[in-house]
Amino acid sequence: MEALKAEIICTGSELLNGRLNLYVPLFYERLAPLGFTITREQSSGDRLEDIASCMKDALRRADLVLVCGGLGPTFDDLTRQAAARALKRSIHRSKECEEILLRNYGLRAKLPNIKDQARLVAGAKRVDNSNGTAFGEILRKGRKMMVLLPGPRMEWEPMFENCLNAEIRAAFPGAPVVTAVKFKIAGLWEPQAEALLRPVMKKYPQASYTILAGPYTVDFIAAAPARTGLEEKINAAAGKILKDKIYGFGEETLASAAGKKLLAAGKTVSAAESCTGGLASELLTSVPGSSRYFLGGAVTYSNPAKMKLLGVKASTLKKHGAVSEQCAREMACGARELFKSDYAFSVTGIAGPDGGTPEKPVGLVHFAVAGKRGVRTFRHDFFKTRAYIRACAANFVLDELRKIIE
Amino acid sequence: MEALKAEIICTGSELLNGRLNLYVPLFYERLAPLGFTITREQSSGDRLEDIASCMKDALRRADLVLVCGGLGPTFDDLTRQAAARALKRSIHRSKECEEILLRNYGLRAKLPNIKDQARLVAGAKRVDNSNGTAFGEILRKGRKMMVLLPGPRMEWEPMFENCLNAEIRAAFPGAPVVTAVKFKIAGLWEPQAEALLRPVMKKYPQASYTILAGPYTVDFIAAAPARTGLEEKINAAAGKILKDKIYGFGEETLASAAGKKLLAAGKTVSAAESCTGGLASELLTSVPGSSRYFLGGAVTYSNPAKMKLLGVKASTLKKHGAVSEQCAREMACGARELFKSDYAFSVTGIAGPDGGTPEKPVGLVHFAVAGKRGVRTFRHDFFKTRAYIRACAANFVLDELRKIIE
Repeated sequence: MEALKAEIICTGSELLNGRLNLYVPLFYERLAPLGFTITREQSSGDRLEDIASCMKDALRRADLVLVCGGLGPTFDDLTRQAAARALKRSIHRSKECEEILLRNYGLRAKLPNIKDQARLVAGAKRVDNSNGTAFGEILRKGRKMMVLLPGPRMEWEPMFENCLNAEIRAAFPGAPVVTAVKFKIAGLWEPQAEALLRPVMKKYPQASYTILAGPYTVDFIAAAPARTGLEEKINAAAGKILKDKIYGFGEETLASAAGKKLLAAGKTVSAAESCTGGLASELLTSVPGSSRYFLGGAVTYSNPAKMKLLGVKASTLKKHGAVSEQCAREMACGARELFKSDYAFSVTGIAGPDGGTPEKPVGLVHFAVAGKRGVRTFRHDFFKTRAYIRACAANFVLDELRKIIE
Repeated sequence: MEALKAEIICTGSELLNGRLNLYVPLFYERLAPLGFTITREQSSGDRLEDIASCMKDALRRADLVLVCGGLGPTFDDLTRQAAARALKRSIHRSKECEEILLRNYGLRAKLPNIKDQARLVAGAKRVDNSNGTAFGEILRKGRKMMVLLPGPRMEWEPMFENCLNAEIRAAFPGAPVVTAVKFKIAGLWEPQAEALLRPVMKKYPQASYTILAGPYTVDFIAAAPARTGLEEKINAAAGKILKDKIYGFGEETLASAAGKKLLAAGKTVSAAESCTGGLASELLTSVPGSSRYFLGGAVTYSNPAKMKLLGVKASTLKKHGAVSEQCAREMACGARELFKSDYAFSVTGIAGPDGGTPEKPVGLVHFAVAGKRGVRTFRHDFFKTRAYIRACAANFVLDELRKIIE
């Protein structure tokens, strides 16, 4: 069976007035496993006729239409009316919805604009909302389905688990159940990863593949028909090629992967950062519970700070400069001593845009990871912008840390 | 004259397969000053008929259609063909384009797929590309205009300055020239900012307004007809209400605003961070040239690190705990002493999700800013997720730093 087509409609003038639309990738992650290919996304302002025309067009082309936003109680929430117009249906007040709102929100549910939240398009199936007053609605038109979702992620996200996954599967019984696996890869650029993985993609063309580039990282998503053994074969084949370049799956980050290994080994870590300015520490501590293994970091941006906090020798700075293997080594050893941690790492480089020389160009970064067994040093040349160089450098050192932990 | 309508079309299956579309807000910033309202955005996969249908629909509704992506030399670059189909035109090889490619890329321009880059839709006006091989194209259909842009931002962005701003203005001479001012605001939540600014918006309804919420920051964008004195009046009125809650305009960040004040005053700063884990240092050092005023930071996640690096007293930790005004004060003074900086700030709090108590709930953060004239301390209760609490806390302390620098 051919992949089913889904279209996304996001409503809200703010999406056309400067705010990023963060939701399309999230809908992709939910719809791909249900056997859908997203073929189009439309963002529309808060005009009734515009939203209705988006819906009519999408229903003509796609099997499933997800509409997000515009179900709130204020004047610019027009999705319900637009759906009624697109489907040529009426809107009615639902006793059940009123009772639920009254039960959950008490007297406030008697306010007129909250009460309006009890209205549904005729023929709609209600989707309960555990985090807000707007009900979702499932609408059928022949074999097609349109789903109205409230705008906030915390409101629509639980609706998939609680109801929509099952409803969509039931409505499209022929849809191939697809399992999407997201491989999290470090140490390869996107074209390298693509070249290495091409044999896998060629060997298993029944799956669909996506490669997304990050700073020194790549996400490789394989969506394969479930319970066919294909997923396992792709996993095995990709694993054999990429080995420990795969640092995790799904929502794993390099920081959480390193954290897991530290926790499992009962070890601690500390950081010494120059050009990354605290970014590697920030990433490590963005993981809940990281205080169990992260003791601290020294952001030694100036040379005096490198000497005073980390014990980098003046002679090292004079002879080799701050951006050197020797300095990286002394920084990592100094941090390990300062924080009394099992491991310590260091980053020192030239993030630009200024400060580069022919011998030490912008993008050159030296690293060290120190542990009980000694110190390993690394150097790497990154490119592009200051922000990108810093992000790559932080990810590089977290990746090396992760690999060294025993 | 009514605002002109623009629509955006972004092509590329990756936009429907997990990658964020970062460009719509950037196009908004360029088109609003030219007098356009963006009325719809469509993202389409790499299928010729889909892209062509997006174009036909958009040209029916809007005065200006921007199409981004799909002008490269590989098989899935179909924008040129789609435009030809949507406009019922042919594609021809341009001698001029060939000569430019040959001049800029030499022998490589003779490779067949690079040579394909010299093709234009019949009647197109070429837009030169200083950072790639894909030319932009300006297409006219009656009074309407469709612009084809290459996908990478570094390629299409210079095209606006170099050519498109003038071409669009010339094609729509009646369009009101609009000046958009982005006020960067800290210390207010979005509803507070909206309530404070409502009188300004009511008094000057000829302008259009957007409010975007960030962590402890708000962007307020006012787009007003140029050379009417309206912009100046809005600036004065907003300035009078918000005073030093405005930390800058346009692309200013709290880190760059604090950095400018430090540079102007010839002063230096250092950081002592606990719950933000290096984020405030990271933000400060994300500004090019920040090594001129940022000396370093201590990320003291553990209590021993707070004592050893910053001289926080054991008795303070015992009596008041690490999340306390007293600890924040000692951390800031300790950092100022350690790094010998003019100013130093500290952040210590509970970012969650665990670690909260009834007395010290998740989201409670203590701060201090130390300078020659003494120490000021602050406390704030933030909410929502770990990442959001950390981002708010870092912005809060950078805002207080900015305001204290003399």
